[in-house]
Amino acid sequence: MKQEKIPYKINLTENEIPKSWYNVRADMKTKHRPILNPATMKPVTPADLAPVFCDKLISQELNDKDSWIEIPEEVLNFYRMYRPSPLVRAYFLEKALDTPARIYYKYEGGNTSGSHKLNSAIAQAYYAKEQGLKGVTTETGAGQWGTALSMACGYFGLDCKVYMVKVSSEQKPYRKAVMETYGATVTPSPSDTTQIGRKILADDPDTTGSLGCAISEAVEATVTTEGYRYVLGSVLNQVLIHQSVIGLEAKAAIEKCDEYPDIVIGCAGGGSNLGGLMAPFMADKLAGKKAPYFIAVEPASCPSLTRGKFAYDFCDTGKVTPLAKMYTLGATFIPASNHAGGLRYHGMSPILSQLYHDGYLDEARAVKQRDVFDAAKLFAKVEGLLPAPESAHAIRATIDEAIKCKESGESKAILFGLTGTGYFDMAAYMQYNSGMMEDYVPTDADLERGFAGIPDVVEA
Amino acid sequence: MKQEKIPYKINLTENEIPKSWYNVRADMKTKHRPILNPATMKPVTPADLAPVFCDKLISQELNDKDSWIEIPEEVLNFYRMYRPSPLVRAYFLEKALDTPARIYYKYEGGNTSGSHKLNSAIAQAYYAKEQGLKGVTTETGAGQWGTALSMACGYFGLDCKVYMVKVSSEQKPYRKAVMETYGATVTPSPSDTTQIGRKILADDPDTTGSLGCAISEAVEATVTTEGYRYVLGSVLNQVLIHQSVIGLEAKAAIEKCDEYPDIVIGCAGGGSNLGGLMAPFMADKLAGKKAPYFIAVEPASCPSLTRGKFAYDFCDTGKVTPLAKMYTLGATFIPASNHAGGLRYHGMSPILSQLYHDGYLDEARAVKQRDVFDAAKLFAKVEGLLPAPESAHAIRATIDEAIKCKESGESKAILFGLTGTGYFDMAAYMQYNSGMMEDYVPTDADLERGFAGIPDVVEA
Repeated sequence: MKQEKIPYKINLTENEIPKSWYNVRADMKTKHRPILNPATMKPVTPADLAPVFCDKLISQELNDKDSWIEIPEEVLNFYRMYRPSPLVRAYFLEKALDTPARIYYKYEGGNTSGSHKLNSAIAQAYYAKEQGLKGVTTETGAGQWGTALSMACGYFGLDCKVYMVKVSSEQKPYRKAVMETYGATVTPSPSDTTQIGRKILADDPDTTGSLGCAISEAVEATVTTEGYRYVLGSVLNQVLIHQSVIGLEAKAAIEKCDEYPDIVIGCAGGGSNLGGLMAPFMADKLAGKKAPYFIAVEPASCPSLTRGKFAYDFCDTGKVTPLAKMYTLGATFIPASNHAGGLRYHGMSPILSQLYHDGYLDEARAVKQRDVFDAAKLFAKVEGLLPAPESAHAIRATIDEAIKCKESGESKAILFGLTGTGYFDMAAYMQYNSGMMEDYVPTDADLERGFAGIPDVVEA
Repeated sequence: MKQEKIPYKINLTENEIPKSWYNVRADMKTKHRPILNPATMKPVTPADLAPVFCDKLISQELNDKDSWIEIPEEVLNFYRMYRPSPLVRAYFLEKALDTPARIYYKYEGGNTSGSHKLNSAIAQAYYAKEQGLKGVTTETGAGQWGTALSMACGYFGLDCKVYMVKVSSEQKPYRKAVMETYGATVTPSPSDTTQIGRKILADDPDTTGSLGCAISEAVEATVTTEGYRYVLGSVLNQVLIHQSVIGLEAKAAIEKCDEYPDIVIGCAGGGSNLGGLMAPFMADKLAGKKAPYFIAVEPASCPSLTRGKFAYDFCDTGKVTPLAKMYTLGATFIPASNHAGGLRYHGMSPILSQLYHDGYLDEARAVKQRDVFDAAKLFAKVEGLLPAPESAHAIRATIDEAIKCKESGESKAILFGLTGTGYFDMAAYMQYNSGMMEDYVPTDADLERGFAGIPDVVEA
């Protein structure tokens, strides 16, 4: 039975913020293959990871037993500042599309960091603080993760060193300014503060930097500085655990409307948002219950799920990190320039990769940039929210599904993740408004060059 | 009796969005003096205003009889996208200040326009649409109003012409891009699209523009174009009526906590936010009931209430608009550069001016820019919200009152208005972070030059 009228915004109360994160990995029939130590090609041990990651986060990273992990009270307190995030019924979008579909979105861009990244940033900062560390080191590309981590570190009084891809730090000075306002040190990468940075600069003084290089610098800065650990905003299991708060809230809210989604849609770069949004619904599927049809949306310019290989590969371009079994375009694949910086990653979360490989994540879909911005602009106009380019990938697929409903006359319930605000991406909108935006799609030859760099790993 | 624990965010339900705006003017003991037609120096008639303003908005502007004005259903529908806005208990700020004060803020920056301006923009766009107009014309300085109006016009499919102060349009290209994304035409002012613009450019081709000039261009473009009307984001009575939605929601929410504010604080430029926030509490005061102590906070660089004269003056620098009896620094006063563009206005809402003159608005306080940013940065860190420089004026006064509570041991309830996000003001934060921010305070001689331009009006 439907309620008489579902409100525009379905707000949970503060007491309904989840008290535990959900670890979908514990319930998976087939676990993903272990992460390998690149020195030994053997599964990593906690001791291998201890110089790089915080102890508690290592135990979360390797945990495939516990379905529920208690959220520390100090993290919950911080969550209370900006959570529960709203679940919104997109009545205006439905009307604009004249669709019988019932569209819902979980909006994670309302906090000052502007994206869902804060959900994991505050958890990671908390564990670093609890361990008595002095600070954390990370890299950022588009800037969402760096901003979120800066806020979290500012709150706990931790040092925060961010290596920001040089071209991004030049193109997005205001992102940098937000991080500095929260007390972070932002270093354009490559820099002369690390050996690897100096080497790259010596080889190519004019390089604009890359995420791969920034990761390498951040890791080097971590292991060479007393009292610091490295933190990361996507891909890792621990991040998916923290981001489950998105899905848990979304499920509680949509059930209050006596609804259950027929389709769940999320953009997918490293997998942090989609992994979090779909986790509790995936639990239903893994338990053999009624479950949604899951769609991962990625940019056609960086199509790791739709055109990548399911193989062991390095997580960074510099090949200094452990290897994960995942969908990958090859660690040396350089995606063509596009405006969804958060989706320009060569690989994919091992958990999502395994679920996709096994058919639990039903579909991956690659969409072109201009189609994404068409969707973004329509959404901005009718729903009054200017979406981040990353989030607009999910909007594109949602609109396409809603149009299918119109054609078939079906009234499906569609839930998608609106991960962030587009405030800091106006250069992209300006390019789109001017008609100068291009669509890039790698050729098969481009992909082959990336695949050639994937190492040959003989699985045990 | 206090509740056991007041939540961090006190959310009203969608059904609790007010159905009517409150018109405080109807309940004032002493009405403000009528607005004068500059051609005749007689009180303006609806017919005088009809070429410039929408008909329904003229009747609201002149309405001093009806305390309540019904919100049209289409405006309410739009409000449902982003309202009720949250009332937040600032537990983290209280803790950081170690104060017994109970601090609440009404946050209006969560919508895509980033400020409270949307509350009036959607109403004004609605009445223009209802009247069958083709579009509206306005000016914008800092950009908050232009952004809000663009969103509102995009929603109703109205043309939107924005004259944006040239220096702002160059310094804030992203603000311009947001407006254009919503379909507005943004013209840097002065421009060659109007007579007055061409004249100003001929006199000084290198001028960076001013709000006064942009107003003149917007008004000229309105009256010379069929099917357009001029709209304005502050100062006017109609704007205060629409912004009462802030105060009505804030009062309903704080009463849910069994609280009543001892102090209400708002930043004041033209008066739109403070007027809206305090309106229903002022109703209590006007009715002789228990009421808060009201504080208006303005920049020391543009101190209209604290150092201005209460006199009839023009509303614009170009002296083409009607005259209002208000606190003014003189229409030719050019405030020194500061980063709260929304507070750089020489005058003050006639309603607020009258209430201040009669002692109902208890106190006006001028604060310096660096003190404001000190407060902004502390707030950003502990409350997780990066405030607009305008809003940070209220934060500064709130912190000062909370420190007084600590010293006296009193536990007062303080309510302030957090009008907007600082996302588009990062250049200001960068200047503050670099230590290069300056405090400007006009000398008495500066003020005298402004006062000299105030016309001699003999009141009837």
